[in-house]
Amino acid sequence: MKNFTSFADAGDYKALLQQALEIKANPFGYQEVGRNKTVGLIFFNPSLRTRLSSVKAAYNLGAQVWVLNAGTDSWTLETVDGAVMDGSTQEHIKEAIAVMSQYCDVLGVRTFPTLTDREADYGEVFFNKIISYATVPVISLESATLHPLQSFADLLTVAETKRTERVKVVLTWAPHVRALPQCVPNSFCDWFTDIDWVDLVITHPEGYELDPIFTRGARIEYDQHKALAGADFVQAKNWSSYHDYGQVLSTDPNWMLTPAHMAGTNDARFLHCLPVRRNVEVSDAVLDSPNSLIIQQAGNRTFAMQTVLHELLK
Amino acid sequence: MKNFTSFADAGDYKALLQQALEIKANPFGYQEVGRNKTVGLIFFNPSLRTRLSSVKAAYNLGAQVWVLNAGTDSWTLETVDGAVMDGSTQEHIKEAIAVMSQYCDVLGVRTFPTLTDREADYGEVFFNKIISYATVPVISLESATLHPLQSFADLLTVAETKRTERVKVVLTWAPHVRALPQCVPNSFCDWFTDIDWVDLVITHPEGYELDPIFTRGARIEYDQHKALAGADFVQAKNWSSYHDYGQVLSTDPNWMLTPAHMAGTNDARFLHCLPVRRNVEVSDAVLDSPNSLIIQQAGNRTFAMQTVLHELLK
Amino acid sequence: MKNFTSFADAGDYKALLQQALEIKANPFGYQEVGRNKTVGLIFFNPSLRTRLSSVKAAYNLGAQVWVLNAGTDSWTLETVDGAVMDGSTQEHIKEAIAVMSQYCDVLGVRTFPTLTDREADYGEVFFNKIISYATVPVISLESATLHPLQSFADLLTVAETKRTERVKVVLTWAPHVRALPQCVPNSFCDWFTDIDWVDLVITHPEGYELDPIFTRGARIEYDQHKALAGADFVQAKNWSSYHDYGQVLSTDPNWMLTPAHMAGTNDARFLHCLPVRRNVEVSDAVLDSPNSLIIQQAGNRTFAMQTVLHELLK
Repeated sequence: MKNFTSFADAGDYKALLQQALEIKANPFGYQEVGRNKTVGLIFFNPSLRTRLSSVKAAYNLGAQVWVLNAGTDSWTLETVDGAVMDGSTQEHIKEAIAVMSQYCDVLGVRTFPTLTDREADYGEVFFNKIISYATVPVISLESATLHPLQSFADLLTVAETKRTERVKVVLTWAPHVRALPQCVPNSFCDWFTDIDWVDLVITHPEGYELDPIFTRGARIEYDQHKALAGADFVQAKNWSSYHDYGQVLSTDPNWMLTPAHMAGTNDARFLHCLPVRRNVEVSDAVLDSPNSLIIQQAGNRTFAMQTVLHELLK
Repeated sequence: MKNFTSFADAGDYKALLQQALEIKANPFGYQEVGRNKTVGLIFFNPSLRTRLSSVKAAYNLGAQVWVLNAGTDSWTLETVDGAVMDGSTQEHIKEAIAVMSQYCDVLGVRTFPTLTDREADYGEVFFNKIISYATVPVISLESATLHPLQSFADLLTVAETKRTERVKVVLTWAPHVRALPQCVPNSFCDWFTDIDWVDLVITHPEGYELDPIFTRGARIEYDQHKALAGADFVQAKNWSSYHDYGQVLSTDPNWMLTPAHMAGTNDARFLHCLPVRRNVEVSDAVLDSPNSLIIQQAGNRTFAMQTVLHELLK
Repeated sequence: MKNFTSFADAGDYKALLQQALEIKANPFGYQEVGRNKTVGLIFFNPSLRTRLSSVKAAYNLGAQVWVLNAGTDSWTLETVDGAVMDGSTQEHIKEAIAVMSQYCDVLGVRTFPTLTDREADYGEVFFNKIISYATVPVISLESATLHPLQSFADLLTVAETKRTERVKVVLTWAPHVRALPQCVPNSFCDWFTDIDWVDLVITHPEGYELDPIFTRGARIEYDQHKALAGADFVQAKNWSSYHDYGQVLSTDPNWMLTPAHMAGTNDARFLHCLPVRRNVEVSDAVLDSPNSLIIQQAGNRTFAMQTVLHELLK
């Protein structure tokens, strides 16, 4: 593993998943790998789970860590090559990333989509620049289009709780009050389409089709109740439109996940990456039910990150 | 000790105080307790002493630590159960606290009072929700009504500097330009009323009576000079009214502590939790006198926290 | 070494430079010095390199570290002695610094100049107060007039890359869109004037003469091309006027460093402390040339800080 930005970077996912399970079983057993190593974490927008789970993962591994809130802790960054920097930007990302690479052994970076310029977002222009300027391995803490650590944690959660060899996993769109990125659903599809023991079904209102690069022929079912029938796992998430880029096409409250929606499933376990808008995306009754795995899923973020750090630092 | 939020949580205060003295004498002697442990610290409002002394305490104990500035580093939190989260709040505290508990072994939390809704503040509604959602022990880094780590450090400071077996300790109100919480004086009374070698006297203008739940029959003397007579220790602090809740009833500069006020004491040692408004609450001459223990008192915050962490993690 | 604020504090610079080279060759070989030690870092304005390199230096040394963003993380500080604090300031720097000293073994502090009150800035009134109130050694992370860790890193970079025993080093002013402090050029002169194997030449438009306390008779050449002729090292940097204090007297783009400027040098290595305004101060072609040492120079910030920490903590 050179960098960690997508499912493809994971390489042999079975081996990586196995490693994650071993690390979770013995979280402090790999500290020789992290000894005298420093993990740098840069956030271009807010974070709770990713920030704290990454810090905890580094500590578990015996590594040290620093966190930089870009923009508030440091300077305003220029991203355009060849720019005449006579405006408000104070430092070019070329130096910033190369310099940060001097102060750590692996660099985690969270960027975000514009949700207005699809070409730039889906070209991962900003994130790819970061990778090109970095001289240490880069971990995506969420980029414009993907959130691979979340998906790895999702996969770990499903793997450790599934009751049958094969499982039906449903990704369902849910309503929200704001226009959100497609990172989490893109990444969920990127990771779950190729798992050989998973049958993935995606359900959403028309117009919310994701980039086929990530869904890769997975079944799309526009009737949410049909999609949920017999599901073993349900992951709910809002996203804005990929086609009418960044637009909110529906706020239909019938898509909010409730016990009535879960009734047709195979006693499905419930997943959500959090944060969740309670009683907008999902009802309290689903979130607080015994089948809800959301806290365990969040806890697995630590072991996903620790496994990736272990791969990159070993 | 399950959580640490008040004097009652301290249990046997004599044993805890003895432990603090031993830890202070040998601060790095207990690192097996902190090994592979992570202390999480969440601040819902600014902090200097509490933040840094808590970090230092964790380091002394061989533990790691993360600090989250709620609201700026992460999301805006919803606190109402059953809320339909279609407004500005992005995550419910129920998930936020449960998730943070996944990334640490003990959670320190600073909240603050509204100073407008006494019932909610004195019911510690917000802090109690945090405790109920946490799955690790919770330490109050100051709540709506109490600041137990401050009071524990105050007690440690008095215990290690007292010149006689019994001591007279005076808590005196002092003027200020803003309406401040009652946390520090409430907590000071909560801790000092039940110490068997302390005679506590509280002095303040009429209308500033504290909640009797914390003063528990301690002598209240409205004449500041009478109260100070013969004192061995004087703790000065401003607070807003408990009865006219959150109101500033007096800014009488005669209550500002000066050498003239200290003249009638038994060469009293001076205490203040800091930050202090110089020449408003207390004059420079008192703060800078050889009898001022304010820096030692602040330094003892580390050992108070370290002792509590030791109890909760051992 | 008692504090580290200037070249004078470095003492025997040859020994310090030798120590830095040894530490760079074996960065984790001195961890007994940092064991159970905590480095406190206080920033009164933003930082990237200084913040992260200082953290990394502490980690390399086996020490722990905390970082405080003054003003946002904590309280608004009063600096005037004898002030009646009935305004917006919440804590006096006297207590703040004395208290912070309780929570660390060495204190790094970044302050900044007013650029309007030269007397206060050049008297280092604020920084000297910090030193006077601190009870642990203080390291300047940049003060109103100097940036000694940067200059130490500059010296280390020149020392480890020079191709001849003696070298000609040129400090050249460069255009900028804002009025910047004189800290970096002052400090560069403070460090390089007394190095016995360096011939220092300073070049800038008329009116940009630095305080002679720091230039100490170094050659000033107003013709930039004459100054650069035969140079082995060129350090570019903008600064505002010392004489017309804080004013921008020139934005002449001819002073922007380009390959044409570098043509007359002795294949000079290029230095800049960063952040740099690309194509305003220096052209891309110079910054990205094989002769550019800017990333190595930034990397050496870690070893400069680690060497200073080692001196102060050993």
